[in-house]
Amino acid sequence: MAGILYMIPCPIGDFDHPYEVLPATNGEIMQRLDYFIVENSRTARRFLSRANIGRPIEELELAECNEHTHPKELEQLIKPLLEGRSAGLISEAGVPGIADPGADVAALCHRRGIRIVPLVGPSSILLALMASGQNGQSFAFNGYLPVKPPERDKAIRRYELRAQTEGQSQLFIEAPYRNVKLFDRLLTLCHPGTLLTVALDITMPSESIRTAPIQEWRDAPPPPLDKHPAIFIIGSLSSHPTSHHTGPDRKFGQNKRNPKKVLPIR
Amino acid sequence: MAGILYMIPCPIGDFDHPYEVLPATNGEIMQRLDYFIVENSRTARRFLSRANIGRPIEELELAECNEHTHPKELEQLIKPLLEGRSAGLISEAGVPGIADPGADVAALCHRRGIRIVPLVGPSSILLALMASGQNGQSFAFNGYLPVKPPERDKAIRRYELRAQTEGQSQLFIEAPYRNVKLFDRLLTLCHPGTLLTVALDITMPSESIRTAPIQEWRDAPPPPLDKHPAIFIIGSLSSHPTSHHTGPDRKFGQNKRNPKKVLPIR
Repeated sequence: MAGILYMIPCPIGDFDHPYEVLPATNGEIMQRLDYFIVENSRTARRFLSRANIGRPIEELELAECNEHTHPKELEQLIKPLLEGRSAGLISEAGVPGIADPGADVAALCHRRGIRIVPLVGPSSILLALMASGQNGQSFAFNGYLPVKPPERDKAIRRYELRAQTEGQSQLFIEAPYRNVKLFDRLLTLCHPGTLLTVALDITMPSESIRTAPIQEWRDAPPPPLDKHPAIFIIGSLSSHPTSHHTGPDRKFGQNKRNPKKVLPIR
Repeated sequence: MAGILYMIPCPIGDFDHPYEVLPATNGEIMQRLDYFIVENSRTARRFLSRANIGRPIEELELAECNEHTHPKELEQLIKPLLEGRSAGLISEAGVPGIADPGADVAALCHRRGIRIVPLVGPSSILLALMASGQNGQSFAFNGYLPVKPPERDKAIRRYELRAQTEGQSQLFIEAPYRNVKLFDRLLTLCHPGTLLTVALDITMPSESIRTAPIQEWRDAPPPPLDKHPAIFIIGSLSSHPTSHHTGPDRKFGQNKRNPKKVLPIR
């Protein structure tokens, strides 16, 4: 019988106390594994040694899978799983499988009938959205903005339009050293009433998450964005429940895309 | 100074051992709180009593915020925060603020300058995507499908088209008793090569997450969907990295929307 591929999150910032952001169960599962597919050996070793997995790191087998890995090498990476050995997949920060080469390993495991079990951990995308107050019934994560200014501006306009027409919250990220420039462009291009969330340093002591209309961001001192990891969320004020007080009978959720009762599946 | 609103996740299924899916830190924060804004008092009390927060549940103040709450009542709910008391926000299952009325409380807190801190916990949306092997660099969560069959079919076609044209993974959910019908419609309407993930009973012992092309789903016995919580993900095979072996020089991520190096922000 094939082994199981565990998707193992690690902390986003500080690795010193991983169980501040990870359930203890994750450690129990890691204790049973001796094979790890990792995005970066150095950071993975650092994480595993802080995670008290009860055996020397030297005894573990670590195989790297990152942007330099060729598709043909993937089969080799999952061979131990096909032979019955379980493995852990660890990305460079946060949850694996979202916007990293770990997704390629998972995709191949599905093709080979290998079971995949995801473990709970910090995702800056999800944490930013939870705290944003923006529409979480419909949202899109768009990854990195285009690098070239004209394409970047076009993307910003497209996200704002989609937020307005579909009420879908639009999340995106930028290389941290370009955050300040991006923020300037958002203030210039977006409608004064468009809602913008800036979520900085998620799970770190310096964490800050703020949502306000573009006009308020324009009038306030800029957030300390430079070189800090940030998630940006554009939303429409009209899909923002508390902005409507149109009548005494209005209840929550009635301006959402799908007004029927929300069942507890999140 | 105003208090802090903590977004506090709870388990999705079994409440008996909450720290299997929650970091111990969440418990330490809950121990310091005596005011909770909750979607459902009964399940919140059950969660809090299992979470060993070190004081009798009767001593806690619980205020409900759900689909029956009127917008005008929101100001009352956050009044203790404005007076300097911190609060915890707990939804019926999983992480709060995503597809629940908790987002309305968070939105108002942003308008009143109250700091919001999200805590790590299980999100079936995120866990399903992590384990799906589908594109996590660009994905959209669309909430519930429309109830009426013609609109539901139109939505399925729209999601498949967007997955094909934009390479954006499309996540959606259905009321669990309608899962079987939805699955049938997906097999009927979608292209044989379209990728479908069915993620069932996330974080539960019966958890199962499988990704396969529609044609393979058609040829296999159907998954045990009826009345089980499920996340569905539609993706395009052409944005599925391991499906291409077009040349010896192809590296991972090159067929993604934005080919530049992925920084560790997730």
